[in-house]
Amino acid sequence: MVSIVLIGTGNVARHLYDAFRSTDFCNIIQVAGRNEHALNYFKPRTATSTNFRELADADIYIIALSDDAINTVSDNLIVKNKLVVHTSGSVPLTALPGTNRVGVLYPLQSFTREFPVNFKEVPICIEAGNRADIEILNKMASALSDRVYDISYEQRKSLHLAAVFVNNFTNHLYAIGEDICLENNLPFSILHPLIRETSRKIEHVSPKDAQTGPARRNDTGTMEKHLEELDNATRAEIYSLISKSIRETHGRGID
Amino acid sequence: MVSIVLIGTGNVARHLYDAFRSTDFCNIIQVAGRNEHALNYFKPRTATSTNFRELADADIYIIALSDDAINTVSDNLIVKNKLVVHTSGSVPLTALPGTNRVGVLYPLQSFTREFPVNFKEVPICIEAGNRADIEILNKMASALSDRVYDISYEQRKSLHLAAVFVNNFTNHLYAIGEDICLENNLPFSILHPLIRETSRKIEHVSPKDAQTGPARRNDTGTMEKHLEELDNATRAEIYSLISKSIRETHGRGID
Repeated sequence: MVSIVLIGTGNVARHLYDAFRSTDFCNIIQVAGRNEHALNYFKPRTATSTNFRELADADIYIIALSDDAINTVSDNLIVKNKLVVHTSGSVPLTALPGTNRVGVLYPLQSFTREFPVNFKEVPICIEAGNRADIEILNKMASALSDRVYDISYEQRKSLHLAAVFVNNFTNHLYAIGEDICLENNLPFSILHPLIRETSRKIEHVSPKDAQTGPARRNDTGTMEKHLEELDNATRAEIYSLISKSIRETHGRGID
Repeated sequence: MVSIVLIGTGNVARHLYDAFRSTDFCNIIQVAGRNEHALNYFKPRTATSTNFRELADADIYIIALSDDAINTVSDNLIVKNKLVVHTSGSVPLTALPGTNRVGVLYPLQSFTREFPVNFKEVPICIEAGNRADIEILNKMASALSDRVYDISYEQRKSLHLAAVFVNNFTNHLYAIGEDICLENNLPFSILHPLIRETSRKIEHVSPKDAQTGPARRNDTGTMEKHLEELDNATRAEIYSLISKSIRETHGRGID
């Protein structure tokens, strides 16, 4: 069993904490965070501290903080010669203190407070400065998830960018869909089956092959009608631009 | 039991045909279509015709064709005083021949050939020229699906527009995500759990409340790095525009 000090109290820290507690391989012995109130979540079962100068002695230190905070905490970390890992999709190994062994344990998931996640299905991307530490991170990640990927920093960065498109941006398109429904006295739930089906389909068919709709058919009449219907300028821009991108992808860029 | 003549042989026609065949309330007695080859799918079990002047006598005629073709077929329909319905999200009742009773049966789903659909979960939007026909369409739709909505033309048009955002455009974002993965030697399947989770979450949390990511946090550093990483001009435009839209939605339009 490896002992862990978890630094951070946000969504990623909470979800990792819950997931680690259900494994036999990892034991979180302390949670450290600046926010006294946020530490309450962990206090019933684990020692906590608001002072980063009072970290317990552990095998591994996991910094589950925002990208900016990783740098600040790294610069002030008192531990030496330990395995120190962060959980970010876009921060390089070199951001971690060189006086320690360094690594990354990046769970590719969007965590929402109070919304439980089945960690077994969450892809975990790992990286480390040497082979032995990759093995340790692989064991830790495999205790949490069935999908562990040993990938480079460049790959991780790209994955983070791809995740912005398929998660953050997609979610914003859902929000636009919800708005259009509500503006027309329709429940957003009427779109749920379509959303579910669209996301399910691409596990079996490449999204490029699954593409349908007015832009794919180059149905300019319908597209013009839709643009007239959109009274929000930014949404009309989104409609035009993504339609253009679909036409470019399917070889109809020049009309 | 009502008898139906189905006009059309495309994806919507096929999926409707399969769904109607599993009900006790609707009996498809003929399928008509111009494409002789496409009629082969229906021939083993149902009479077919390539001649729209030889339609069988039935209670209901369903025109499951593209928006443009609905007009052409309507203009040349020989039947009179029957219930004639189309299946389009964006065509008004008035496109159907006034010499008949008219209606709409619009299944809100993206149909892909060879990709089975659980029709029980597909929302079906109905509209008709009079109350008695709404009742007939309601019975037909309820035989297919647990989600039947009696909505106006204006609502149906808006729903079709919302569907373009949450289905066609979302699918295109998935295609961009797939491309970024493949360009970096990552399997697209690494994004599947995130995609599934994002689509599942909004059945429980409003997408506006579920919004995360660099644009939501106004994390300009990460957004700049992402834009540098995107070497495709259209994708960079999409990134900037949707990020702007997210900031506007969450009250950070002016930075």
